[in-house]
Amino acid sequence: MFQDITTLLLDTKAFRDTIDLFVERYKDKNISVVAGIEARGFIFGPPIALAIGAKFVPMRKPKKLPGEVISEEYSLEYGKDVMEMHVGAVQAGERALIVDDLVATGGTLSAAIRLLERVGVHVVECACVIELPELKGRERLGEKPLFVLVS
Amino acid sequence: MFQDITTLLLDTKAFRDTIDLFVERYKDKNISVVAGIEARGFIFGPPIALAIGAKFVPMRKPKKLPGEVISEEYSLEYGKDVMEMHVGAVQAGERALIVDDLVATGGTLSAAIRLLERVGVHVVECACVIELPELKGRERLGEKPLFVLVS
Repeated sequence: MFQDITTLLLDTKAFRDTIDLFVERYKDKNISVVAGIEARGFIFGPPIALAIGAKFVPMRKPKKLPGEVISEEYSLEYGKDVMEMHVGAVQAGERALIVDDLVATGGTLSAAIRLLERVGVHVVECACVIELPELKGRERLGEKPLFVLVS
Repeated sequence: MFQDITTLLLDTKAFRDTIDLFVERYKDKNISVVAGIEARGFIFGPPIALAIGAKFVPMRKPKKLPGEVISEEYSLEYGKDVMEMHVGAVQAGERALIVDDLVATGGTLSAAIRLLERVGVHVVECACVIELPELKGRERLGEKPLFVLVS
């Protein structure tokens, strides 16, 4: 079973409401960085970043970012993958929100947390539209808060 | 030389102004579909779609969309690639804007035009942040208008 968020994007009011729910939660949290995870985190992250006045930082698959990067490996159901972030996109002391469409095992979110924390950024929260609770991704994030709209 | 739009995303005013320039141009054009091309078209397309009240339709690399798709092949500098769109995401007679970060040879944009026109959608225009005019992508789009912020 695949939870498909593309149908949400076809309903203009539902997509607007989805973004507004995140914006309402994060607008007064002094967040200066919204980090979106490739590729569906790129759909939800930028509208949130624009609305709360934060910059948008893409967390990408290997060899997609043209500048100098730092990278983190994470495990998939079968094998491993790597996530990269531009060095210099964020500064130590900034406060970040990590955005993706869905949290399953939490592997990609935890890699994004590690990337940001390695350069001294405080990750305020992870925000996803959908959580699959039976995969226990929330446990993998440790103390880091996870906010979802649908569980 | 790689034209990197990620630095634009770090400047909150510049990113806001970029989106606003597109919104100003398209808000009164009766556009009901914004089609964004994976992956950087996912960053610029959704904020435009939300602002003009259009749905957002992702145009993705093969095997990324979970539903039934139609696909178009296009040529790269070396070899070929395929773009896919969900069947049923758009209806015949709708008016679409195609969004990507950059137009080089025009191969991906022309594949997106073909996908939409095959199902009876009218492509109003293609919109990109950057055009590399020496690669003549504009010619490959034929009669279809291309709007860019930086050439």
